[in-house]
Amino acid sequence: MTDTVISSATREVVIGFNRPFVIIGERINPTGRKILAAEMAAGDYSRVEADARAQVEAGAHMLDVNAGIPLADEPAILARAVQLVQSITDVPLSIDSSIVAALEAGLAVYKGKALVNSVTGEEERLEAVLPLIKKYGAAVVAISNDETGISEDPDVRFAVAKKIVQRAMDYGISPSDVVVDPLVMPIGAINQAGVQVMRLLHRLKTELKVNTTCGASNISFGLPRRNGVNAAFLTMAISSGMTSAITNPLHPEVIEAVMGADVMMGHDPDCARWIRKFRDVPPAGAPLEGAGRGRREGGHRRRPA
Amino acid sequence: MTDTVISSATREVVIGFNRPFVIIGERINPTGRKILAAEMAAGDYSRVEADARAQVEAGAHMLDVNAGIPLADEPAILARAVQLVQSITDVPLSIDSSIVAALEAGLAVYKGKALVNSVTGEEERLEAVLPLIKKYGAAVVAISNDETGISEDPDVRFAVAKKIVQRAMDYGISPSDVVVDPLVMPIGAINQAGVQVMRLLHRLKTELKVNTTCGASNISFGLPRRNGVNAAFLTMAISSGMTSAITNPLHPEVIEAVMGADVMMGHDPDCARWIRKFRDVPPAGAPLEGAGRGRREGGHRRRPA
Repeated sequence: MTDTVISSATREVVIGFNRPFVIIGERINPTGRKILAAEMAAGDYSRVEADARAQVEAGAHMLDVNAGIPLADEPAILARAVQLVQSITDVPLSIDSSIVAALEAGLAVYKGKALVNSVTGEEERLEAVLPLIKKYGAAVVAISNDETGISEDPDVRFAVAKKIVQRAMDYGISPSDVVVDPLVMPIGAINQAGVQVMRLLHRLKTELKVNTTCGASNISFGLPRRNGVNAAFLTMAISSGMTSAITNPLHPEVIEAVMGADVMMGHDPDCARWIRKFRDVPPAGAPLEGAGRGRREGGHRRRPA
Repeated sequence: MTDTVISSATREVVIGFNRPFVIIGERINPTGRKILAAEMAAGDYSRVEADARAQVEAGAHMLDVNAGIPLADEPAILARAVQLVQSITDVPLSIDSSIVAALEAGLAVYKGKALVNSVTGEEERLEAVLPLIKKYGAAVVAISNDETGISEDPDVRFAVAKKIVQRAMDYGISPSDVVVDPLVMPIGAINQAGVQVMRLLHRLKTELKVNTTCGASNISFGLPRRNGVNAAFLTMAISSGMTSAITNPLHPEVIEAVMGADVMMGHDPDCARWIRKFRDVPPAGAPLEGAGRGRREGGHRRRPA
């Protein structure tokens, strides 16, 4: 099956159907984060560094880096953020911008083989981004919309994804270096969004045989208890063939859903990673039987040997 | 698609592919519950009543009632438990025993159309149980093992399920009144247990077109943080076509996984049930922004209107 290899200077991550799911941390993104945007624009990257460390510590296998700040020098800021993040962590990065010059600035300083986020099926974008992917030997996220917008019909989105893969091949880029984003819509607005994306993920896996990613948190936009919806989405999407997602590893529900899905898919041999992660953790909300015997409330509890 | 109708004297539950998932509460079962077993054997059903009320309150749509107590008069105890549970709640029941005389005693006093748990593919069981199902107009759980035991090959288990459905038809029982249990094995022991059961559930839905149930908690036997594994299993199984499960509704993770899966499958129009359930509930572990302003720690928090 298809393996997509992404790397930093010293570490390799492989996205693939027979492998554990890849979590790409979404936090380094000033969209909707006013303080972070102001700091990055002013040359203060302390929060970027903190977000990078926290996400890797929480279980992110890769980090998305976005510097989309209105009126700022996005290429310079993105390049600086990429350099900084690479100086403090060795996980591979997704270089994320809608501005082609920013993608190139990020690629120019990146050490390793990056994932570029993203290209769409729009002609202008294909012609601007794909040559960069080839030049830098990167992989690319292909978003399944085009000049006509985002179709609600998963078969139309499949056709757009197929076109992008074919255009990438025309530029000498292997289909294994194209990671398709099926586009996840808020299920609070579109009741069939889940069924649509599962169907599309299944076709992308079985027919186009490409790896997939998405902005997973979109699914729960506008709903209460978003992490519960996100967990259900991630679990089902993984069973439908999704192999990575840009999401928030700082939510324990997200990590648990992904690790549980890996167990169910047979991608955690002997459940070794699950057991290592949870053997000392009492269930959420469970009474702490050891409480009152010197342990602080909320602390971890060892099971009796 | 196939609808399986189960009823009490006053309420109907329909198990089906285009409907919300049906949770069958597993708690009224003395297996492994010494105190409950001793109480039931002594004619004390107070814990049975409490378990019935608590499970319905927590979200169970049906309740499984089992009276498997060694050396006790199981037919009499099961019949009494069925009567008592029906006197205090109106959800339909699953009458659960490995003793045919107990199943008949339960059916004789049951008001409505019961689900009988269970028949296997063993000749002796088929010949003993299926006439009872026909006589009482009940539905039946068909467990996909036979004289040769439980196969690890999902295709063999599919063949056993198909045989039971055919034998049921010979007795004049509609396939829509056969709910197949694909048999869920502990994934800590059998790494491919998840993949196997998903494959089997998919075949049962698309080829045999029958509803399905299972003892869902088996999947996590021996693992830490069982509810996390159970949640991942339920979510994936629902996306593979499972339509009901015998499980523990007292675990909030189970209810949340099932409700999240219903949202993702498009079986919760406008996410209305999700929103009603969770609009006032802060995420687990989240800081309570309203704390210190008169609300108790751990209490529910209303969003600002």
